[in-house]
Amino acid sequence: MTACGLPSDKPADDTPPAPAPPTTMVIFGATGDLAARKLLPALYNLATRDLLPDAFTVVGVGRKPMSDDEYRQKVREDVSEHAATPVDDKCWAWFVERLVYAFEPLDDESSYQSLSARLDEVEHGDGDTPRGRLFYLATPPDAMSDIIAHLGAVGLTREPSPERWRRVIVEKPFGHDLASAQALNQQLRGVLEERQIYRIDHYLGKETVQNLMAFRFANGIFEPIWNRRYIDHVQITVAETVGVEDRGGYYDKAGALRDMVQNHLFQLLALTAMEPPISFRADDVRDERVRVLHAIHLCSPDEVRRRVVRGQYAAGTESADDVRGYRDEPKVAADSTTETFVAMKMLIENWRWADVPFYLRTGKRLEKRVSEIAVQFRRPPMRLFGTAPGEMVPNDLIIRIQPDEGISLHFQAKVPGTRSTLGTVEMSFDYADYFSATPATGYETLLYDCMHGDPTLFHRADMVEAGWDVVAPILELMTTTPRDGLFDYPAGSWGPTEAETLLARDGRTWRVP
Amino acid sequence: MTACGLPSDKPADDTPPAPAPPTTMVIFGATGDLAARKLLPALYNLATRDLLPDAFTVVGVGRKPMSDDEYRQKVREDVSEHAATPVDDKCWAWFVERLVYAFEPLDDESSYQSLSARLDEVEHGDGDTPRGRLFYLATPPDAMSDIIAHLGAVGLTREPSPERWRRVIVEKPFGHDLASAQALNQQLRGVLEERQIYRIDHYLGKETVQNLMAFRFANGIFEPIWNRRYIDHVQITVAETVGVEDRGGYYDKAGALRDMVQNHLFQLLALTAMEPPISFRADDVRDERVRVLHAIHLCSPDEVRRRVVRGQYAAGTESADDVRGYRDEPKVAADSTTETFVAMKMLIENWRWADVPFYLRTGKRLEKRVSEIAVQFRRPPMRLFGTAPGEMVPNDLIIRIQPDEGISLHFQAKVPGTRSTLGTVEMSFDYADYFSATPATGYETLLYDCMHGDPTLFHRADMVEAGWDVVAPILELMTTTPRDGLFDYPAGSWGPTEAETLLARDGRTWRVP
Repeated sequence: MTACGLPSDKPADDTPPAPAPPTTMVIFGATGDLAARKLLPALYNLATRDLLPDAFTVVGVGRKPMSDDEYRQKVREDVSEHAATPVDDKCWAWFVERLVYAFEPLDDESSYQSLSARLDEVEHGDGDTPRGRLFYLATPPDAMSDIIAHLGAVGLTREPSPERWRRVIVEKPFGHDLASAQALNQQLRGVLEERQIYRIDHYLGKETVQNLMAFRFANGIFEPIWNRRYIDHVQITVAETVGVEDRGGYYDKAGALRDMVQNHLFQLLALTAMEPPISFRADDVRDERVRVLHAIHLCSPDEVRRRVVRGQYAAGTESADDVRGYRDEPKVAADSTTETFVAMKMLIENWRWADVPFYLRTGKRLEKRVSEIAVQFRRPPMRLFGTAPGEMVPNDLIIRIQPDEGISLHFQAKVPGTRSTLGTVEMSFDYADYFSATPATGYETLLYDCMHGDPTLFHRADMVEAGWDVVAPILELMTTTPRDGLFDYPAGSWGPTEAETLLARDGRTWRVP
Repeated sequence: MTACGLPSDKPADDTPPAPAPPTTMVIFGATGDLAARKLLPALYNLATRDLLPDAFTVVGVGRKPMSDDEYRQKVREDVSEHAATPVDDKCWAWFVERLVYAFEPLDDESSYQSLSARLDEVEHGDGDTPRGRLFYLATPPDAMSDIIAHLGAVGLTREPSPERWRRVIVEKPFGHDLASAQALNQQLRGVLEERQIYRIDHYLGKETVQNLMAFRFANGIFEPIWNRRYIDHVQITVAETVGVEDRGGYYDKAGALRDMVQNHLFQLLALTAMEPPISFRADDVRDERVRVLHAIHLCSPDEVRRRVVRGQYAAGTESADDVRGYRDEPKVAADSTTETFVAMKMLIENWRWADVPFYLRTGKRLEKRVSEIAVQFRRPPMRLFGTAPGEMVPNDLIIRIQPDEGISLHFQAKVPGTRSTLGTVEMSFDYADYFSATPATGYETLLYDCMHGDPTLFHRADMVEAGWDVVAPILELMTTTPRDGLFDYPAGSWGPTEAETLLARDGRTWRVP
């Protein structure tokens, strides 16, 4: 049983992983990009690892007329391109007979009634094994409200029995600001219980992100030094080299703060800074994550001006190619004040972290594609070795999320010879050296967990709202004085120089990843 | 200036290392094995690195008649064989003209007077630059007292001025038990000040041993967890694969406890367990090392029986070769009760280490040549991940001294996939990857330090006596009941099974290096 009282088939850890329970998975937006590149390849990957149940069907729902066979052909192509392994005929045969297409215009209730009938039919044809139903909303953000309302109206969200669970996976953005997030959550809760809502963040499906908890809480030696007494500050960097690509229309309304900080970076911060949970049950873990978010200091307008740097990429070079500036990108306003870069200093006001700055930065068109958490420890309290004080190099621990997942620890060692000279050395661990890399889309674990009723890696309503709460003062200032604190940076750099100044004022510098 | 008030030319650490001050080095036992294999190659290595002064002479003293030229020829061969680099003609030319031989029977005072005259002559010939004199006693243990007494009698140990320092390097064994060590120290102090006495332990010349202090005290993150709250126990292993070779005569009177434990292993223990010194001045560091030795619990006879396992190798195989047992080795008594292996459990009774066992083991004819310090941390206080309790793997940190110097940390990481399964992974640092390996005899740093008046890496009288004090109850029991607690082990194994039992009683096992 899960913490919420619904049955969980998630197996105990000393047996091989069991397949998900009987499930019908309904994908809204079945012909879209996300379904093609991530969802169906992820499901196929799960099938190759025997993690899907026999009683399983994917019902792709789309507004494009298509036969089952046409859809299957399309999915075969998508899977060939994006699955972890070349398509295996036997496995595909198993998979394809569990794949159907439902052409539905989704413009009125009748469409949902016909979908409901189709689902009953699919499950009846399979011998009426009691099944859960997973609705995946892989649709544009503005379609969500309508779909949710209709699902509720035709009774598709009602759970007739524990085995016949009904869950909905919702894609970000989870609102546009605190008020819209609250409104959206309220609407979702009008139709669904919170435990039925799975707000997905593919970032949390990454192995290293999940491993952060293992690293901190399955080892005895890190937790004792994981606090203000030993840690000087933390840097979280999520850097992309790409520009907005074809997402200019969406991005220009969102910006880095909404697109990256409020969700991804805050979750990395929460996993880094959270207290040990009382158990690994989903809500115990999520309680601790939200507790950290609630402890983040809410900035006054003056503090926003001092602690937040926004940037927008100008023309520059990326991998030796000339690239245009943000305001020249398609579907971006020529006078756009949308930020493509944010650097900010955050303080967590609790016993563990008081006065330890968390510096966050993220941006597009930066020098290197890299995501990492750098924990910089304090200097030793005494300078025993004969290095000049300014030269004392503090330890740091780098949790590398991409591209090469792993952990590195930098420390001081004696340089061989007759003298007591120190040099910085690295102890390093690379995931790839230890665990056979199972290439994956990042969605496998999340889909599997959802079918098992484990929402640990999904966002809860209060987490989303806590994130918006923290960025609210920044959004506020962006609205009133949109050009204030917004600086250009050349594409291919590490952001505006003001981001360096932000740390320089505290006597610190950004790590060069 | 050193802590003792004598001038120290040891340079500040931000300048390149300076050569040693003007020195005449007198080697007693100049034609012996140690001089040939270690001392002269080490001096030559120092010369190649510009670490010897222009005003420098080696005076080899021996009982074998030999001309300077014959001696130089012999040294050239020794250096060719044992120096770090092929002999360079220019460097050799510099070195050889600073090499003389003094044939002295050393049987009465006149011999020392003639040596004294020779030294004056050497230094006069060099323009009377004020020089220190370093007397290296590379002689059999029984010759030491006599040489020291005579050096004192003819005034060779008197220091006319700070630049004309007189220092004596004494080789182990430093006594045979507490009483003989005290007598020896008393005799040395009759002729020399403690600060003139350099008891050498080539183990402390090893880079990794010296690096232990850098590791602990130049980094901020290890010291906070370096105590009973986080460390479960420590294992110190110094394992040899060789037997007694041609040293049977000496070894059969000594045994592993005297030959290895009382000096080398106790120094490794002291460096692992010492408190941070108030400075890196020699006596501040040595004060802390001796303080740890004084804190070791002195065993009652009953405790010796429970906590100490002695072993003697029987016939067996070493690297696929059949090898004979210890009692069949040349010059070893057929009914010998001398131990070639010791495993013991020691407790350090201070605030930091109370109740944390230090398990020490050393032996000849073991499975593998390896020296390491394994610090095993406690398990995390809570089992959050779904591993069965018995399977929770604690962290350990391995400080590898030989053969491959480095540091490894084992910790738990999440095995990729849909499940929260943990696997042990390693972060590792190898000296060889970071610092160009300068092959060395291990004596370079020690000789250089002695000329500079830095005794940090040498044993002080109180350290030697503290070591004997700890082993006294064991020696006592060995004398009264020599066969008690002595077990055979096959050559090529990890010692007698009783050594496993010693840890098994505490619910622990020896690490397999």
